Amino acid sequence: MVDIVHRIAVKGIAPETVSDAVATRAGIASWWIGETSGDDAVGGTLDFGADIVATVVERRTERVSWQVKEGPQEWIGTHITFDIRQDGDWTVVLFKHEGWAEPVEFMHHCSTKWGVFMLSLKQYLETGTGSPTPHDTLIDNWS
Amino acid sequence: MVDIVHRIAVKGIAPETVSDAVATRAGIASWWIGETSGDDAVGGTLDFGADIVATVVERRTERVSWQVKEGPQEWIGTHITFDIRQDGDWTVVLFKHEGWAEPVEFMHHCSTKWGVFMLSLKQYLETGTGSPTPHDTLIDNWS
Repeated sequence: MVDIVHRIAVKGIAPETVSDAVATRAGIASWWIGETSGDDAVGGTLDFGADIVATVVERRTERVSWQVKEGPQEWIGTHITFDIRQDGDWTVVLFKHEGWAEPVEFMHHCSTKWGVFMLSLKQYLETGTGSPTPHDTLIDNWS
Repeated sequence: MVDIVHRIAVKGIAPETVSDAVATRAGIASWWIGETSGDDAVGGTLDFGADIVATVVERRTERVSWQVKEGPQEWIGTHITFDIRQDGDWTVVLFKHEGWAEPVEFMHHCSTKWGVFMLSLKQYLETGTGSPTPHDTLIDNWS
């Protein structure tokens, strides 16, 4: 099992609000990829713009999950999942990008990059402004 | 195998400089934990201040590796490794924190937090000023 995992939390923001930011086209465009289009309902196909296309597998307040259909070779067939729950005054997001065949160097890159986007999600929820592509923090020579 | 992995790169900075920033007490104190003390030579014991103590297993330009002796329960016995190499104008750092028994929620937290510190390392190398604890970016209710 080779997975990318992350954890962030936001204070005083309801799980429903966090889940909508994660799951809706408008939300995704505010913290991950600015040009996201497609259908964000269960069974729908989301086109994230940067040649990444995924099917919406689950969309509940507690869990949002996509399966990648098109994108970088190493991403095809992988699952991207957000588990969302309340913990006192906080709402916690557990992120997982699972199903990588091997822990290749590109996976190291994607792990750091997902961390950057998790911070962008947190910033979007807390301030109303995230840093989606192409306004994301550059981490290395692969962007 | 359950590992945390990350990748950053800096442009126009020599591998030796990057390795020193990763390996030396003064370097570590500039991007990870401000109160780091101890012996940063191979076989030495580094005290990172936040109740984390590790043995220096390797210290070469191409690889810096520590084994954790004291710290959070889940960290004890794990290895933290930085592989450093030149790639054209860039110096690439591949980070790995390996040996976690289970992908517990605390591991998700540490993955995001290591990402934050990798960005701090990059910032330190590029600008001379990093964001070590206690000046690090807070990510969740566990800090």
